[in-house]
Formats: sequence, C-alpha cells, structure tokens
Amino acid sequence: MSSQPGATAGSLFAALPPIGETSEEFVQLLRRRGLVIERIVSSGQASPPGFWYDQPEAEWVLLQQGEALLRFADEDEARRLQAGDWLDIAAHRRHRIEWTAPDRLTIWLAVFYGDEGPPPVGAAGSPSA
Amino acid sequence: MSSQPGATAGSLFAALPPIGETSEEFVQLLRRRGLVIERIVSSGQASPPGFWYDQPEAEWVLLQQGEALLRFADEDEARRLQAGDWLDIAAHRRHRIEWTAPDRLTIWLAVFYGDEGPPPVGAAGSPSA
Repeated sequence: MSSQPGATAGSLFAALPPIGETSEEFVQLLRRRGLVIERIVSSGQASPPGFWYDQPEAEWVLLQQGEALLRFADEDEARRLQAGDWLDIAAHRRHRIEWTAPDRLTIWLAVFYGDEGPPPVGAAGSPSA
Repeated sequence: MSSQPGATAGSLFAALPPIGETSEEFVQLLRRRGLVIERIVSSGQASPPGFWYDQPEAEWVLLQQGEALLRFADEDEARRLQAGDWLDIAAHRRHRIEWTAPDRLTIWLAVFYGDEGPPPVGAAGSPSA
C-alpha cells in the first residue's frame, strides 16, 4: 500500500499503475481518526474464490472509472457497478469483488468510516497479496 | 438541499439538474456522526463577492467532472481544479469558489468530517440562496 502522508491536494488520475498488474493498488489519500479515504485501482483482479471481505468499519465506495461486479453474501446476484455508481457497505456486511474489467483500469474511491477507530494499516487492502 | 435518507446505493450522475440553474444543487448521499458525504452540482455559479466559506468541519473534496477555480484566503492565486483533482480543506480554512464552468455541469464529491459533530443542516450549502 502506498500513502501520501500529509498531502492536501492531488489527482485521482495521478501515477496510475499500468493495466494488468498482478494485484490491485491501494493509495491512502486521507487518514484521520475513524476515517480513511483511499484510491483503489483494479484491472481484472477479483477476490479469490471463497473469500469475503468482512470489515470492522463501514465503507462508502464510488466506482470512479471502469466496471466491476460486487456481490454481497446476503444477495443472490452480483451488482454491476459502472462509473458514478456508489454503495454504502455496512460494517461486517460480507462482500466480494466477482470481476473487474480486464482491459482497462477500474478506479475506486473508498471512504472507510466507523466508530471502532481507524482500520489497521492494510486492513482495507487486497486479499490477493 | 435534497437528501436521500437511508439510500445505500446510487449514482453520482442520477437526476442531475440542468445547466444554468440559478443556484448550486446539494444532495446528501451519506450522513453519519461526524461525517457527511454530499454531491454538489455547479454550472457557472461562484461565491458572492467578499464571501468566504469558514466551516467548523474539515472538507475533503473531489472535482468529479467539470472545472472550477477555488481560492484560499491564505493564497494569492486561485487553484484551477479539473476532473480527478481533490483537496483536503482544514476546518476554518477560509476559501471561496471564484468560478465554475458556465457551459457544463461541474460535479463535486464533498466529504465533510471532523470532531465537532456533523454540520447543521444547510451548513454545507450554497451561499447563493
């Protein structure tokens, strides 16, 4: 995970990784008590079979660019997310990324929040590492 | 100000106002203790002459689409913001919007946060009303 400690300005489109990296890229844009804002870049990665995110903090996530399928454990079908789509994911609501577009970058803006304190470093990170 | 209380999914591009409205549009996407996420849509509006935002909460803001000039009181020149640019604005750091593109919609994603509790309803709203 990269981070930009202390940065107060930037661009979501700066220093993007190339398409087809083996793992997703996570960059922290802001970290405050109970709040982390992160850019996540995918290109074809998905959660490993059987893996579910089960996060102690809630996550408001915006798909900035690209396309993805996100599945909640309590729903039968994955949701297709396109540019501009956002979701509020409650803490401990189990979910996984079924698919991201393999031929282009999918950029997420994730806002992790909650009353249990900030997540430990890497908690919002990829299961693929 | 509009709001979508209880909504857990949506699109930033849904139900956009037409270009050229007399005032900016504010839609709350999420409201939690100490955290408000809001979509702001501008098309040509600017802060009134002499007006400065002086907010009790901090604001992380992303320019999602369009173009704007944002000026801090402690800087000599306005900053030009384009799609993907973000800024973290400390609480009580005085700032104003000098200009937004008049011929298209400028869409902002604003994350208001802080330890002083959520802002009162309307506090993040337009000074142009």
